[in-house]
Amino acid sequence: MNIQLSEIANVGLKKVTDDMKTHKNPDLRLQTPQPYRPKPSPKPSIKTFGAKKMESVKPPKCVLENKKWVIEYQHGNKNLVVSDTNIRQTVYIFKCDNTTIQIKGKVNSIAVDGCKKTALLFDDVVSSVDFVNCISVQAQVTGKVHTINIDKTDGCMVYLSKDSVSANIVTAKSSEMNILVPDESGEFKEFALPEQFRSVWNGKRFVTEQTDLIG
Amino acid sequence: MNIQLSEIANVGLKKVTDDMKTHKNPDLRLQTPQPYRPKPSPKPSIKTFGAKKMESVKPPKCVLENKKWVIEYQHGNKNLVVSDTNIRQTVYIFKCDNTTIQIKGKVNSIAVDGCKKTALLFDDVVSSVDFVNCISVQAQVTGKVHTINIDKTDGCMVYLSKDSVSANIVTAKSSEMNILVPDESGEFKEFALPEQFRSVWNGKRFVTEQTDLIG
Repeated sequence: MNIQLSEIANVGLKKVTDDMKTHKNPDLRLQTPQPYRPKPSPKPSIKTFGAKKMESVKPPKCVLENKKWVIEYQHGNKNLVVSDTNIRQTVYIFKCDNTTIQIKGKVNSIAVDGCKKTALLFDDVVSSVDFVNCISVQAQVTGKVHTINIDKTDGCMVYLSKDSVSANIVTAKSSEMNILVPDESGEFKEFALPEQFRSVWNGKRFVTEQTDLIG
Repeated sequence: MNIQLSEIANVGLKKVTDDMKTHKNPDLRLQTPQPYRPKPSPKPSIKTFGAKKMESVKPPKCVLENKKWVIEYQHGNKNLVVSDTNIRQTVYIFKCDNTTIQIKGKVNSIAVDGCKKTALLFDDVVSSVDFVNCISVQAQVTGKVHTINIDKTDGCMVYLSKDSVSANIVTAKSSEMNILVPDESGEFKEFALPEQFRSVWNGKRFVTEQTDLIG
């Protein structure tokens, strides 16, 4: 109960010390999640955050630091556009949630780390677009990208452009990955990437195939 | 606090079990050293457990429940042998740590769930041996097994027997998997299973290969 109450206080009602804040006191994060109980408080949006979510209550950020765009802790922001870009810049998107981010122009690389229900729209990327530790993310490229890395991610939809259909899609420790490829008329067709593999010894080495291709 | 209190009750007032002794339980040694504080209480060893360790402070269990051997919360037990088995029984190993478990005879299946640094030695398994959510686990089969599933596991070494070299090894969302295959003289040779894959559109569908096989 302390966690939920202190959080309500945090947004205006009462003074909360650091050791009562989940993002400052790691002990609180490790506790068993508290059962949900409806509350008479007038701040319903806070209630829906469980104990585990507390650490993400940091101020949202979208700044250019040297050559790196840092976009962090955006929640429910459906209209974030970064347009003043160039080919030497990288984009780092961290701990965003229910957010749509558009990167205009050509950048060196884009990394999406620890994001949930986040959509990324971009034009051109010189090196790679990386998804790490994400849940339910989407990306759409309108120009060209050579490599898309998907690592430790559950749920990733990637809409390729006609110029990017030959991109390498490198995956590891991930599930529910779907790639959408445009046909001649520009309509998208969806293809699932394999996430489970079967390895069998052939007398000399192990031969690995994706399980859904095996009879 | 409930867990700690019940735990104290469970072991009697002053009895110290092996898993509470630092020299017998490697878990305790892995914790951040606690600053020494003289304590007036007669139960000092319990207090030093942090919130994170709470879930593992459950009584170790190794019992046959109906047709299922349940082996849970074993810590640092290097000599756990289950020998009274039969072909209709399953074995479920949960949240064990630094433990070596030997299953003698022929059982229906073995599941290893949420274990760390746990070694499993078994003779024969009719259906499958499953590793889920494990870290640094090992298994050795001396008889026959058809299928080994490795899911959401980082670090898994499997020693196959001559009778089991043709086993299907099904993997998903895992890393650092090594299979050891005996040669004619019985010596083991180690083979890494692929954990990263590259998918490329060929005009009709995506073709997926393991990355270490690609130039």
